Order: sequence, then C-alpha cells, then structure tokens
Amino acid sequence: MTDNPLIDADLHGDAFLASVRSILGDKGTVIDTDDMAPWLSDWRGRYHGKARVLAQPADAHELAAMVRLCAKQGVPIVAQGGNSGMVGGAVPDDSGTAILLSTRRMNDIAIDADTMTATCGAGAILQVLHEAAEAHGLRFPLSLGGKGSATVGGLVSTNAGGTQVLRHGVMRALVQGLEVVLADGQVLNLTSNLKKDNRGFDLKQMFIGSEGTLGIVTRAVLKLSPAVAERRVVFVGLESAHRARELLVHCQKAMPAALEGFEIMPRQCLDAVVEYLPDARDPLGEGHNWYALLEFVADKHAAATLGDEVEALLMDALEKELCADAAIAANETQAESFWQLRESIAPAERARGPAMQHDISVPVERMPDFIIAVEKAILKRWPGHEVISFGHLGDGNVHLHVIAPSGSEREQWERETGKSISRFVYELVTAWGGSISAEHGIGQDKLQTLRDTHDPAALSVMRAIKRALDPAGLLNPGKLV
Amino acid sequence: MTDNPLIDADLHGDAFLASVRSILGDKGTVIDTDDMAPWLSDWRGRYHGKARVLAQPADAHELAAMVRLCAKQGVPIVAQGGNSGMVGGAVPDDSGTAILLSTRRMNDIAIDADTMTATCGAGAILQVLHEAAEAHGLRFPLSLGGKGSATVGGLVSTNAGGTQVLRHGVMRALVQGLEVVLADGQVLNLTSNLKKDNRGFDLKQMFIGSEGTLGIVTRAVLKLSPAVAERRVVFVGLESAHRARELLVHCQKAMPAALEGFEIMPRQCLDAVVEYLPDARDPLGEGHNWYALLEFVADKHAAATLGDEVEALLMDALEKELCADAAIAANETQAESFWQLRESIAPAERARGPAMQHDISVPVERMPDFIIAVEKAILKRWPGHEVISFGHLGDGNVHLHVIAPSGSEREQWERETGKSISRFVYELVTAWGGSISAEHGIGQDKLQTLRDTHDPAALSVMRAIKRALDPAGLLNPGKLV
Repeated sequence: MTDNPLIDADLHGDAFLASVRSILGDKGTVIDTDDMAPWLSDWRGRYHGKARVLAQPADAHELAAMVRLCAKQGVPIVAQGGNSGMVGGAVPDDSGTAILLSTRRMNDIAIDADTMTATCGAGAILQVLHEAAEAHGLRFPLSLGGKGSATVGGLVSTNAGGTQVLRHGVMRALVQGLEVVLADGQVLNLTSNLKKDNRGFDLKQMFIGSEGTLGIVTRAVLKLSPAVAERRVVFVGLESAHRARELLVHCQKAMPAALEGFEIMPRQCLDAVVEYLPDARDPLGEGHNWYALLEFVADKHAAATLGDEVEALLMDALEKELCADAAIAANETQAESFWQLRESIAPAERARGPAMQHDISVPVERMPDFIIAVEKAILKRWPGHEVISFGHLGDGNVHLHVIAPSGSEREQWERETGKSISRFVYELVTAWGGSISAEHGIGQDKLQTLRDTHDPAALSVMRAIKRALDPAGLLNPGKLV
Repeated sequence: MTDNPLIDADLHGDAFLASVRSILGDKGTVIDTDDMAPWLSDWRGRYHGKARVLAQPADAHELAAMVRLCAKQGVPIVAQGGNSGMVGGAVPDDSGTAILLSTRRMNDIAIDADTMTATCGAGAILQVLHEAAEAHGLRFPLSLGGKGSATVGGLVSTNAGGTQVLRHGVMRALVQGLEVVLADGQVLNLTSNLKKDNRGFDLKQMFIGSEGTLGIVTRAVLKLSPAVAERRVVFVGLESAHRARELLVHCQKAMPAALEGFEIMPRQCLDAVVEYLPDARDPLGEGHNWYALLEFVADKHAAATLGDEVEALLMDALEKELCADAAIAANETQAESFWQLRESIAPAERARGPAMQHDISVPVERMPDFIIAVEKAILKRWPGHEVISFGHLGDGNVHLHVIAPSGSEREQWERETGKSISRFVYELVTAWGGSISAEHGIGQDKLQTLRDTHDPAALSVMRAIKRALDPAGLLNPGKLV
C-alpha cells in the first residue's frame, strides 16, 4: 500500500490498479492470473470471463470506496460470493473491463440468541452460519447443496431456495435487514432490528434477488428458528404425481407446523440413484411409479408427540390410499440415507449422459398435470428422449431434466436439439402460468429467455428501477435486467 | 354514458368530466358535493381536501382507462379504499385538481380452500374477507380496529399491521400476488399463484406500503391460515415493562407457534378504561404497575393440549416471578371482555382530553428501556403532562400518547406544546434506532417528519424509484415521498 497512488501507477503502468491497491492494500488486490482463475469460471464450467482485478475488501467501508472509485472511472463491477450459482450470475464477461468484487473476506457472524437473529457479513458461508446458530440452540432454516461455499451475500442476492422452503420460505422470508452499497458508493443501512417499520417503501426487498444489479449487499440480519429437537423422515411409494399432491395437502392440513420437506421423484430417478450409489437401496420392497420424501420436524416443545403424530398421519393416508407404501426412518443414519437418495439424483442423472436441466415452477395444484403434459409434449416432438421431473413439489418447483438418447454426443446434441427443447419447455411453463426460474435466478444463462417470455410491463418496470438505481449501468452488466 | 365524449363535454362545459363519464358511466362518476363529502375528509376529521370527481370504476379495466386518461391530461390521482387511514394518505389536497379514485366497487372475494388463498378486488372489506374465509374453515390472520371499513387495497397500500402480527406478520407477509395499474395505465399482473419465482426483482414488494404513490393496487391474492379451533386469552399483572419483555421471550421460547398476541398497558390505561367503560372491571384483584394481554391459539390439530400447555407455561412464569398474577379467561365472553379492555384504551384516553399520539417502534429488546427513558425525558421538559405507552410489545411497537395537563384547551395546546412534544418524540425514537411510523404509514401527516429524520440515502433511493415509476408525479402527490 502506498500513500501516493500516482507513484504506484507509474510502477505498474495502471493508475486504476494503483488506486485499487491504495484502497484495499495488497491482501485485497489480486491480479495474479492463477489466483484469479478459480473465480472467473462458474463451478460447472459453463461460463468463463476476465477481470481487471479481483478486489477483496475487508469490510463495507473498503467496498464502498471501491464502488466510488469504479463509479468515477466508469468501471463495471461484478460482485461475487461463493461462486456456486447456477446461472453464471457472478461471472464477468470476457472483455476484461470489469472488476470482480469478492465479499469472501467479510465473513463475520454474530448470533443474538435473545432476538433470534444472526448478523452476517456478506461473505459468511452458509455452513458456518448453520454451525454458529446450532451452538446457541438455534438454527438458520435454509439449506442447499452448495452450503459449504455459498455465502450469505450470494444467498440474499439470488433469493435462494433449497429444501426447507415449504415451512420457512425462501431467503426473502428470512432476511430481517440488509446493508447495501449503492452504485454511487453510498452505504444504505437497512439493518434496523425493527419488526414493524412503515417509513415508506421497503427498500431491502429490491436488493433481495437482484443479483448484484442494483447494489451490493454487504451485511444481512437474518432470522433464526429454534433448533430442531426431533425429526421424522419418511419415504413413500405413490401411484402417481397426482397422489403425491393429494398426500401433500393431507399432510399440510394435518401437521402444518411440522411438515418441512416434501420432495418427489419418479421411479426412473430412484433406479438411477440405486445404480449410481454403491450402497444405496430402495427403502420400499416393491416398485412404485412415484416416490416422495417427507420430513417432519419439531422443536423441543413438540418433540415428544411427533413420532406418534407422523405414524397416525401415515396410517390415515394409507387407509385413504393417498400412498401405496411408507417407510419411516428408524434412526438418523437411515434418515440420512433417505435424503442421500434425493440428493444423489442430480449426479446420478449426469452420469447417464447429456441432459438439459430446467429449474421451473408452476402453481402447486397444477404441477401433477404439468408433469404429465410436458413429458407427453416433449416425447411427441423428440422421441427417444427421457423426461424426468423431481424435487420440491411442496413449493410447486421441480427440476425438469430432458435426457438425450443414449449415445448422443454432448455438444452436438445440446446445440442441435437441447436448446430447442429448453425453448419449448420455457414456452410451455410460461403458458401454464409458471416461472422459467423458480430458485436459480436469471444471471446470464436465462437473460434472453426472460426477455422472450416475461410480461413486457414487468420487464419495463424492472428496467426503470435498474436505470433509477444504477444509471451508468455499472453493476453486474449483462445479467438479469 | 355516451358514445361521443365531445357532445357530453359541451353539455357540461368540462371535456375531462365527459371523458370520465364515457369510461365509468353515471354510476362510476360522482360529482355531487354531498355524495363526495364523506370521502374528502379522513375519518378523524383532521384532513380535508377537494376533488374534481369521485371516480368509482367497476373493475381494473375501467380503472386502467381512467389512469390513462389522467396520464394524458396531467390530472393527479388519489386512490382511496375505506378511508380509514390514520395519516391522511387517502385525502386529496384542497386544490381540487386531483380526482379521487375509489376502489370500493371492486369488492369481489374468491376463496380457494385448496391453495388456501383469497383473491380479492381492492375494494373488498376486511371483515367481509374474514367471514368469507371462515365459511371455508379458514381465516385471514390480520385484524384491526377499522375492519368494518378497511379495504384489501388500502391494507396492502399501507402495509397494515394489527393485533396478530406477532405470529403472522404484517400485510406484506400475507400477500402472495398483486395486480397493479401503473402510472401510465399499464396493468401489471403479479398475481401468479407461484410459491417460488426468481424472475428478477419481486416487483409486488414495491407496491406494498407505497400508499398509492407508485401504482394503484386493483387485486390481491392473500394467504389464508387454518381456522382457529381453540384459544386462551390471558390477562397478566406485571411489576414492570422489563418483566413484560422477559415474559414475552419466555412465551416465545416455550410456545412459538401458539403465541399470537402480546399487548401491554400501564396501570393508568387500565384505570382509564375501567372508568370509561360502564361494565368493565380489573380482571386481577390487586393493582399492578403493568399489564399484558396474551393470546394463544391452536388449530384443530393442536387444540386438545392448548389449555394445559398455557397453564403450565403460566405456572412456570409465576414461579420465575416473570409475572405477579395471571387470569386465564374462563370462556369466550370473558376472553372478549379482556380484549375489550385493550381495545378501549384509545377512546378512554381520548375522553380524558387533548393528547398527541405516536405510532412508533424500536427494537423489541430495547422497548422497556425506551418506555422509561421517553417518559422521563418528556416530563422533565414538559412537567404536568402524562405519558403512556401501550400496545404491541411483541412487535416492538407501542402507541405513545402524551396527554395534556387537565384543563388544557385543545387547539392552543396542540399548537403551542403538542407539536414540539411530537418533534421531540420522533427525534428520540430515531436516536434509539426506531421508526416514526411502525404501522400507520406516512401519508401527509408524517411527510415532513420523515424528511427531517430519515437516512438521506434511503430518501434519495425512494425518490429515484418514485421518479422511475411515476415520472410525471401524478400518483397521490404530496404523500410519502
């Protein structure tokens, strides 16, 4: 670090870089190509970009100074957390004009057991937050596959979902306050710990899910829940997706406060997982067309009766023929093995060959019809393919994979067929009143699809808000809006 | 109604009015002064305005046509629901240039028991919605004093609170979708019944609590809850406001899913109510410094054990000396009488003479200290006054009334002393990290106070969003932003 950025500028031949270094110091200023490389591609290797510098501010103060510098110089800023997104939202373009602004050093976590909140720097990692809350007999009730790398700032900026949305909602429902650095470098403090505050527009809502296009989240106050004292994980065999939906309604009516997860998968998924995982086995004896994984939880207050209630509920469901068979995990090991079946669907399917994946939602009550209709329509047009829908039925959100005929060459199939299939899926989803992105966001991956399918009035309002908050268009350009 | 607005224009000498009539017909076009009068003052009689016409569209289609007409002609629009707001937000200014746009005719309600939602026209009245939900074994868990006149559109536009916020949240938490007419007359349909949708900014959030300044809410999809099968209402005597907060935490930890209301009042309030209401009596034998009213509820699933759990919780609280005495209502009549004590505070205090009323919030955990500090500070500066704080402790929101010395003349006191007291209260609240408006909104009443006390960065973002969505400034001018 130097007091005079101009001297540094001469040494490096880059006045901008010297200014960055004067703000962030050496630790916060990464220009080495090898050091930057892991952060310039997304984790699935589908997007690659370049950056002038990887800026790693130590706190919101440094970050705001960086944003002011970029605003002054007209330098685009791509904010990044754990780089575990699904839509290329945190990868810069390949022009090399942008800076990559990592929040990873801003990773402090403070748990307040009294107010049941966690105040986290944007770079705090989800799994570390889980552990910090547990140490206080609390929990942060949002979890997803990338929890070991996903950061709080990224979860907020993408309005993340996961497997506990049914009971606790998406990230938006868990955010109590935010601190955001605006495009001009002003720090907007929206972290007040107020349960009720009607002083005009709830500005924090605009930044949740905005993928770094309106401001950069530097801090979040998150709501915690009491720790789970008891859980019951159930694996259920079903005649159809329609029965799954009926069982869901049955469970929600009987135990609304306890039902935390309701995931479905067709038989092909279970077969693929059993083949893929060395030790996996079908928890139910005979084959069924569909399966559901249910999780019921209770805090210490309701723990004593949970087991009996779940058993009674399932007896009732079997009697009403909502499900064909059910296995309640006898212990935590078995519970984990049930969940492992669910969590292994994605890798098991990937191992089978090329596929187009779609993170879509429709109204929950229409999902069974949609699953049948989309499969039929795709197979009619593209015979030889396989269509599977699995995931968060309780949220009206499935991951819809269309698998290429065996022996297909990946790149050729994606180019010649896969893209058309995706376009077809998104058109169908839109026609059914659904969303082309249920939980993964838009990023660069779905930007054109959003433009093609979304309500023009909504798009024009989004653009107006973007222009209002980032008139120079420097925040994460080419993403979302 | 006529096919040719120009003919009508000649007859009335007002081309604008003729155009209005051609859109809305005679039923929707009110110009009679007597018919308009009740809607041109707020219900407390503190604000009075004028309007060119009271426009009463039958549906969103007519409403959008009206907005397009006004946009074209540069006519300001003040949207109004039940006209039961507290801050003059739905009363036009006295220039007579604006139209008053009432949504009251758009009052359809459709309950979907399967998805547990209610789709309501903006003009649907809260109490009618309550009854419609009950008829399906469901409920809409937001209630407040003005429920007989407050409309869904008004509740959304003011992000209303009430007495059930502790468990169910404010209006924002209960809105699943909105239909909004934008300043240019475009209809923005955000009513999709999707539990998860990550297609960019969650635009509906901007319109919730925006008091008709960004768009006009024409329809809302609201979340319903299972009907209450059992409740326990408890009246508790407390040594101090600090004990009240400790009891609150105790209850929230022990029965988080059942605790629905936690209201506090000081002894003066109870005394005033007992004096004011003919049949009221103190539910507890001896006097206490503070009182709390607690409501615990259970749906049919949890109903059987609720009574025992509440009794055990209270025994524990008495043993730990969190409260000094407690009475559980023996039946619904007694439960209602307990609630009547709470609901009669405002009229009982009004009967005592002039007072300044403040709807404020601070972080819940700071509220007991704040209540003591604000009383001390006011009495030091204005001896002879009385300071009472009562209401939603569970939400960190109290109504803070400062009562004039007995014998004060209302107008003189308000002018010479009351206004200074309010300014002092708002400054103190702001210094404590609180809000000058917890649930009533800003309207015209608190606009200057907001400008004086709010974060300049937040104000500038609010103004940027206002300019983006209503560049001509025609939507509810002079309110909120």
